[in-house]
Amino acid sequence: MAVNLPPPEPKSLYPVAGVELGIAMAGIKKPNRKDLLVVRLAPGAAVAGAFTRNRFCAAPVLLAKKHLKNPVRALVVNTGNANAGTGKDGLKRALDVCASAGRLLGCKAAQVLPFSTGVIMEPLPVERIQAGLPDAVASQASWLDAAEAIMTTDTVPKAFSKKVKLSGGEATVTGIAKGAGMIRPDMATMLGFVATDAKVAQKALQSMIKRVADKSFNCATVDGDTSTNDSFMLIATGKGASASSAKDLKILEQAVTEVSRFLAQAIIRDGEGATKFVTVTVERGRSEAECRRIAYAIAHSPLVKTAFFASDPNLGRILAAIGYAGVGDLDTDKIDLYLDDVLVVKKGGRDPSYQEPRALAAMRKAEFTVRAVLNRGRAAATLWTCDLSFDYVKINAEYRT
Amino acid sequence: MAVNLPPPEPKSLYPVAGVELGIAMAGIKKPNRKDLLVVRLAPGAAVAGAFTRNRFCAAPVLLAKKHLKNPVRALVVNTGNANAGTGKDGLKRALDVCASAGRLLGCKAAQVLPFSTGVIMEPLPVERIQAGLPDAVASQASWLDAAEAIMTTDTVPKAFSKKVKLSGGEATVTGIAKGAGMIRPDMATMLGFVATDAKVAQKALQSMIKRVADKSFNCATVDGDTSTNDSFMLIATGKGASASSAKDLKILEQAVTEVSRFLAQAIIRDGEGATKFVTVTVERGRSEAECRRIAYAIAHSPLVKTAFFASDPNLGRILAAIGYAGVGDLDTDKIDLYLDDVLVVKKGGRDPSYQEPRALAAMRKAEFTVRAVLNRGRAAATLWTCDLSFDYVKINAEYRT
Repeated sequence: MAVNLPPPEPKSLYPVAGVELGIAMAGIKKPNRKDLLVVRLAPGAAVAGAFTRNRFCAAPVLLAKKHLKNPVRALVVNTGNANAGTGKDGLKRALDVCASAGRLLGCKAAQVLPFSTGVIMEPLPVERIQAGLPDAVASQASWLDAAEAIMTTDTVPKAFSKKVKLSGGEATVTGIAKGAGMIRPDMATMLGFVATDAKVAQKALQSMIKRVADKSFNCATVDGDTSTNDSFMLIATGKGASASSAKDLKILEQAVTEVSRFLAQAIIRDGEGATKFVTVTVERGRSEAECRRIAYAIAHSPLVKTAFFASDPNLGRILAAIGYAGVGDLDTDKIDLYLDDVLVVKKGGRDPSYQEPRALAAMRKAEFTVRAVLNRGRAAATLWTCDLSFDYVKINAEYRT
Repeated sequence: MAVNLPPPEPKSLYPVAGVELGIAMAGIKKPNRKDLLVVRLAPGAAVAGAFTRNRFCAAPVLLAKKHLKNPVRALVVNTGNANAGTGKDGLKRALDVCASAGRLLGCKAAQVLPFSTGVIMEPLPVERIQAGLPDAVASQASWLDAAEAIMTTDTVPKAFSKKVKLSGGEATVTGIAKGAGMIRPDMATMLGFVATDAKVAQKALQSMIKRVADKSFNCATVDGDTSTNDSFMLIATGKGASASSAKDLKILEQAVTEVSRFLAQAIIRDGEGATKFVTVTVERGRSEAECRRIAYAIAHSPLVKTAFFASDPNLGRILAAIGYAGVGDLDTDKIDLYLDDVLVVKKGGRDPSYQEPRALAAMRKAEFTVRAVLNRGRAAATLWTCDLSFDYVKINAEYRT
């Protein structure tokens, strides 16, 4: 029931030279479920990462950050268990997974990046992962398989691919992501992996991922809950065309951004219980920070989100959220509010020409935009969010059972 | 279906000398519904107020703040319409209500405080209120009638009463409140009115209300949505014993706090769709502000609230909320977490002795406490909140229809 998100066409997902994928059913939480992904990288690949800012950073995140300093040869991703809130024992378990993968692949544990997603505060079943690794390494999986193997409460696999022309030839960018709940990325999403065969210097890649994250995963919020495990990884294998000139880097970054935005929006479209995909834009603020603050207040308000669900133009709830966002000197008499192109509020009060049926027509669509114009500066910010439905409560009340 | 909140016994609510109450069915939003309350004060009454910090402050709030500078003779409260997000026209309508009430009661418009609660951004139907005022003034209503007349999505009228002995004789404190949704008071609740017959100087009363609000209405949160209309008023008619000595003021403040805490907790017990009443305490932090910040993150997390609803000890969600609360230098390895007296997390990880059935037993109760111990200082903060249930979504998706 994701919003305008059909499953990806297998043919639309281009392989990336220098990346080998393998998946397995390791029975981590439940049997007969793809729950383990191994991403094997050719020697010389550059890898950059953006991680959660949650202080309860999960063990695999801590380890991935550390191992990122070495030449990375593999990523191991498991679902069914987040290995978060697990203390020192959790770190040891994540390291054991890296060591086992390293032995199989002929590299050091410190060259393997671990990623986990699933239930928090349960011990990671290392033995099951270790038992599943040989199967995963032996399998030859597609990007679609990989996207399926990292799903938790996602209902649709999320993957996107694109080719661009650089001066030295064509480059491919392919990415996968998983999301669904506990989504308010503060650096990245739950898990997102984007790979290109282009050759990019490590430093350029690291600087690229920050900008891309801010234009993609950091614009998505389902429920305001920043996960303990959010990780967004960008891989450049160097097996294809080189991107070293400013022009090539720009073209590549554009493609990486496009893939990442698709994935970030896919996470919202498939947000837990989502029936609407809503773009929230705050314009003409004094700073991007205040625009984001107001956009988050709108996107996180349970009252606004239930009104989205009901297609109810109860727009006062949006005004109230703007008012309590914490922008202390906000002059509400200057604010205009639009629902798609319907002017709802003019200078802080209901526009005299406003007719509810027009707002209702906009909100009944599966996708629409809420646009608040502060009229006090030149900054702007945009977020993507979804509604709060019965199914969100149902999914999260029943998640562990 | 409020949590442990039976309707108040009419006999338990003591009249307050110097306060006359009147109610009417004015048909403001729907017919045959008590929706108008007039509180008439004897000359010489002192009145203090605490109001919402929402920047989209409703018209009646702006006017009440202004009129509070005059000797107040009456309060007029309507439900069914919040007169918020209504701009200058809204101010004019609120003033028209004050003027009509003033004419009926023989005082100036500027001596009447208006309060409105209900739908935001609709024009206030002044004529209906004006037509209902004579009925309200002619009626002789009880505090229970008054509590009923200010209900919106509340399912139980909220009122509480107490008598205390001051050095000059007995004093009565009686209060009413309404709440239910859009509840994250940032100075006060949706609407709360507490009256005493004690004689208190205006300045002492204003200083008292701030302390009382911080210990009562400002500790309550249903959904994190700070309303545009939150108002908490404290009235001292001066018809009874005087409270001028420090000792008497302290006794009186204690009683006012007790009444206000009852009302604030009643709002949570009757929170929209609430099935649980949860106390969130954060202890041993460096400052009260950081403790409150973490307590709010826990209390507002939709994932935590749905876990409360499901009685699911998915406690990792609480850890995640603590982690993203925005306390930048928080050392998660020091944190302990309790569910009632069940130690769940010790030093940032699951306590080795933890057994889920014990946590489950605590969460299955209609009331329990979540206690996070930061172990980095001496400050603490407590909030009251409720769960996020199917009915919250149902109520708010259907509110206007």
